[in-house]
Amino acid sequence: MFARDLAPPYYAVIFSSQRAAAGDDDYEATAQRMADLAATMPGYLGIESARNTEGFGITVSYWKDEESIRQWKAHLEHGQAQARGKREWYQHYELRVARVDRAYAGPEGRSS
Amino acid sequence: MFARDLAPPYYAVIFSSQRAAAGDDDYEATAQRMADLAATMPGYLGIESARNTEGFGITVSYWKDEESIRQWKAHLEHGQAQARGKREWYQHYELRVARVDRAYAGPEGRSS
Repeated sequence: MFARDLAPPYYAVIFSSQRAAAGDDDYEATAQRMADLAATMPGYLGIESARNTEGFGITVSYWKDEESIRQWKAHLEHGQAQARGKREWYQHYELRVARVDRAYAGPEGRSS
Repeated sequence: MFARDLAPPYYAVIFSSQRAAAGDDDYEATAQRMADLAATMPGYLGIESARNTEGFGITVSYWKDEESIRQWKAHLEHGQAQARGKREWYQHYELRVARVDRAYAGPEGRSS
């Protein structure tokens, strides 16, 4: 659920999306498959995801470097899922690539 | 709901959290108050937030620069809310500060 104990600097892909009203077919299965597939990619560090009851969601995947993100973006099966997402599943999305410079965890007082 | 049309580079504060089972008192009101208050701060660019039915949530706030983030972190009322969050509201959280280098939006094909 949490991506824990990662040591900056590393990279985050922040994907915010609003699900379309229709088009539930295969969405959950594909989202789970993409999370499982991402976890097999070189440079993958973790993933966090939450979607509310109105269909607005944020998924953040964490990566060692920009090259890892490029490889994940270029993965064939991921590309096919992205195409379906654009066509069927998302009313709107924003995707941002960011470099994490510092991180803290709590409330236990751990930090990295 | 979406933070749209922001021009990189800018900064993201990624706050992932698991709500505690108890302690709902004032949480929603305080979370809304913090979002409203953040929006009045210099350098604020937007906020996105989603929490699922299991109490896991991700809030990403966007800022012009690191100085804006420092000022928001140092805001007295925000500090009081953070203290209550640590004490009452969150079982665990991860907070990351990241610099957004590039961004895309869809599925309309807009990008920045």
